[in-house]
Amino acid sequence: MLVLCLGLSGIAAAQEPVDLDMVSRIRQEAFHRSQVMDIFSHLTESIGPRLTNSPQMGQANAWTRGKFNDWGLANVHDEAFDDFGRGWEFSSASVEMLSPRTLPLHALPKAWTPGTDGPVEGEVMAVSIKKLADLEQYKGKLAGKILLLNEARPYKRGVEADSHRHDEAGLAELQAFAVPRDADKDRARRIKQYTERQELARATNEFFVAEGALATLGISGWDNGIIRVTGGGSRKAGEPVGVPELAMAAEHYNQLVRAVERKQAVKLRVNVKARFTDEADQPGYNTLAEIPGSGSKAGEIVMLGAHMDSWHAGTGAADNAAGVAVMMEAMRILKAVGAKPRRTIRVALWSGEEQGLIGSQAYVATHFAAHPEPADPRQKALPASLRESTGALQKKRDYDRFSAYFNMDNGSGRFRGIHAQENLAAMPIFQAWLEPFHDVGATTVATRNTGSTDHVSFDRVGLPGFQFIQDRLDYSSNVHHSDLDTWDHAEPEDLKQAAAIVASFVYHAAMREEKLPRKPLLEG
Amino acid sequence: MLVLCLGLSGIAAAQEPVDLDMVSRIRQEAFHRSQVMDIFSHLTESIGPRLTNSPQMGQANAWTRGKFNDWGLANVHDEAFDDFGRGWEFSSASVEMLSPRTLPLHALPKAWTPGTDGPVEGEVMAVSIKKLADLEQYKGKLAGKILLLNEARPYKRGVEADSHRHDEAGLAELQAFAVPRDADKDRARRIKQYTERQELARATNEFFVAEGALATLGISGWDNGIIRVTGGGSRKAGEPVGVPELAMAAEHYNQLVRAVERKQAVKLRVNVKARFTDEADQPGYNTLAEIPGSGSKAGEIVMLGAHMDSWHAGTGAADNAAGVAVMMEAMRILKAVGAKPRRTIRVALWSGEEQGLIGSQAYVATHFAAHPEPADPRQKALPASLRESTGALQKKRDYDRFSAYFNMDNGSGRFRGIHAQENLAAMPIFQAWLEPFHDVGATTVATRNTGSTDHVSFDRVGLPGFQFIQDRLDYSSNVHHSDLDTWDHAEPEDLKQAAAIVASFVYHAAMREEKLPRKPLLEG
Repeated sequence: MLVLCLGLSGIAAAQEPVDLDMVSRIRQEAFHRSQVMDIFSHLTESIGPRLTNSPQMGQANAWTRGKFNDWGLANVHDEAFDDFGRGWEFSSASVEMLSPRTLPLHALPKAWTPGTDGPVEGEVMAVSIKKLADLEQYKGKLAGKILLLNEARPYKRGVEADSHRHDEAGLAELQAFAVPRDADKDRARRIKQYTERQELARATNEFFVAEGALATLGISGWDNGIIRVTGGGSRKAGEPVGVPELAMAAEHYNQLVRAVERKQAVKLRVNVKARFTDEADQPGYNTLAEIPGSGSKAGEIVMLGAHMDSWHAGTGAADNAAGVAVMMEAMRILKAVGAKPRRTIRVALWSGEEQGLIGSQAYVATHFAAHPEPADPRQKALPASLRESTGALQKKRDYDRFSAYFNMDNGSGRFRGIHAQENLAAMPIFQAWLEPFHDVGATTVATRNTGSTDHVSFDRVGLPGFQFIQDRLDYSSNVHHSDLDTWDHAEPEDLKQAAAIVASFVYHAAMREEKLPRKPLLEG
Repeated sequence: MLVLCLGLSGIAAAQEPVDLDMVSRIRQEAFHRSQVMDIFSHLTESIGPRLTNSPQMGQANAWTRGKFNDWGLANVHDEAFDDFGRGWEFSSASVEMLSPRTLPLHALPKAWTPGTDGPVEGEVMAVSIKKLADLEQYKGKLAGKILLLNEARPYKRGVEADSHRHDEAGLAELQAFAVPRDADKDRARRIKQYTERQELARATNEFFVAEGALATLGISGWDNGIIRVTGGGSRKAGEPVGVPELAMAAEHYNQLVRAVERKQAVKLRVNVKARFTDEADQPGYNTLAEIPGSGSKAGEIVMLGAHMDSWHAGTGAADNAAGVAVMMEAMRILKAVGAKPRRTIRVALWSGEEQGLIGSQAYVATHFAAHPEPADPRQKALPASLRESTGALQKKRDYDRFSAYFNMDNGSGRFRGIHAQENLAAMPIFQAWLEPFHDVGATTVATRNTGSTDHVSFDRVGLPGFQFIQDRLDYSSNVHHSDLDTWDHAEPEDLKQAAAIVASFVYHAAMREEKLPRKPLLEG
């Protein structure tokens, strides 16, 4: 693999032009006059977490527009996408054990679940609900109770370091491409599972309210006191939101389960200040801005972006103020160095990513391409990946004017290269563009796909969308979707490095003679 | 080193008798009918943390006496030591940021600091107090303020695994003994430092109260949201306890410091429910029990023990319900297997360890030996290690009847051997006693000293006091003195193994012809 890669690199160096004077200017601005930490700090600490449609997300849209305008970017605006749902925010949450002894317990609410409207006190009861039929046995038994939804989970010892950076061997491994297995053809089974899960969640929410349960507790996804928590209830107006629901530190949650198993009567006081900030569903908003191109290619588009929305337990730092700060800083750098791109460079700060790439998918559908919406409401209720084919892709005006999209959403760690998403024709180009950044650790172009964030919205419709290879630091051990997703876990030097590389990549994409090559679109 | 060690082991095997029938019975009872986790669970989860002189420590004294009586041990009693101070307990603590935005902050109170008597609200102010003269500048400026006592601390990446077990190479390294440097002769400087620190703490506590500060916040000793916190204020009646003082998760604390540095006005609400449980100083209590010896050596004593007191943030699990459970289980095993020891086997569950080995030191002074108390009150105010020599050791009746003391207080990890505390004559004996436990990982006898817990109270007066070599697991990364010192971080199999080894060691110490050899007493 390495030989092949070096071969591609050799070809690239010979053929793909790199403007080293511009790269120098970009590096100078990025490394010596950086503002990336100012942006990152404002988003994480002055604004804080940015749950989609929360007031803080609105502040972030406004503040980033302000920065874009200050820097002289064009077409700065928020673009709505339909019907995301309601906003939600919380200000405090406390759980105290009152008996058999006093003990403060560490827990945070799931997003889109109600507050307690003042402190409530009740006895703990363990329930096991895996299917609709499991609800029946609890009829008439839940009034005034605080429910434990999960079993205890044994502590998992930390036998690897929390923080990880790729070494040479690790980067070499990334060059291996795993030939995919046959896709799961059993769509019917997956649809059934998905639908049943949705129905069970809805029915359970209604049941707990009807039965008068006070609150529910689940176990945090990680150990060591870290609270890893996403959403519950429902963001959609009119849907049942259930009772207050919290995720509790594993060490505390397990203790409650063991006490119940010992038949001890455990009484808790729960106080969650949380509220839905809207009565009705609201659109979500992406923030966009441009450096317009000039000349014959000005109508063509190079995009860069990152999602600005976050979960609510930390301050959305590695996920994804890091990506937003890097993409904004890349735009600032390009303005600061006086870049005059041929193609238009457009930055997008997405919303609704955490709920399924909603903002970016809507944007791509509006501006570039989409599959027809299904007519069947049951199909419409499914996520895009489970729907039956609705016919050929419907392309919009700018589909053919689009060159490439570059995304960042794998934490705050240093760029070590880029995933080519099986677009082999793009690889020698990326190799050439990376060469001036080998000295800061970015060396690797891998054929691999990487998923699960906004570049997929582009990739799905056959447009070149890419994400960089990053050192993961403690993203998957401490930070991802947890209360530790905060300022301190980021590395300023890594964010500076990433901003320089993004600025250079989008500049070169905007200047090269041809748009980025596309891979064949896989679809029926 | 390894050759030397194997040599000693060879000699030992030839000379030191090991009762393998008894070892088999001990192993059967320890491994197949263990109660160690029941004991550990009751201490950590039914009783909870056991700060010295807190009501929970009193419950632990009573419950362990009950167990000892149930098992048919003799002379079960609590033995008081003078004038420890007051008890203290807390039931809840919350800190919320009210502006510039709302944010729940994670913090726990220092022991022996007052509660807030309901929620208090105030603006945050950073102070820097390193010496008495630093107080002056804050005169008239602290009223209604919540003070940040520390600077921000950069995040320290976890580049090693949280959990550690010794491998063969690590055990071999323990065989190396570091010849000690000359002791620090500059006692005067150390006394001055100690005295100044004490004076500063007292003056600062008084100053904050007089100036009307609402509360103080410090940074937790560890990152990753772990709250590592010990004591503040004062446990002594009549001494200034200061204002409410909390240790805050580093990620939250640093955020406050940065906001203050940005000149943002930060307002917090603090609510700590904590109280001193006594008006006047109270004695502390160790719990003791015996299996009486019989025959001519019945007046001689073999001891085992562990401190039962803990800090308050977790449930005192690895530090040191683990040690207590293992020592209690060892006594239960010896009764269960029908051991009839020649020497009396006495177990001690110490208190006041966390405040300076106070319980064990008082016990040793009463029963075995002590240096004369200094007449000078300034000398008396110093910890034992800083005092001038007060003359020759004064030995009590049982000094010459004492054989050995075995302690456990290095977390809940598996025994891998024992520290011989430079008592070379004890090493072949320990090698022989360890041989039947090589198959469960306990192989190593090291000449090394280990310190900082109750065996030191014996060692200091020339009595053989030992601690085992343990796998440290996540003791020094997550657990020690933190809110994660809880049930889940212990390994049941490791505690069973430790109990078997302790039972066998004390049994053989009680049965052998001679008492354990002593090393020469180092003193002037």
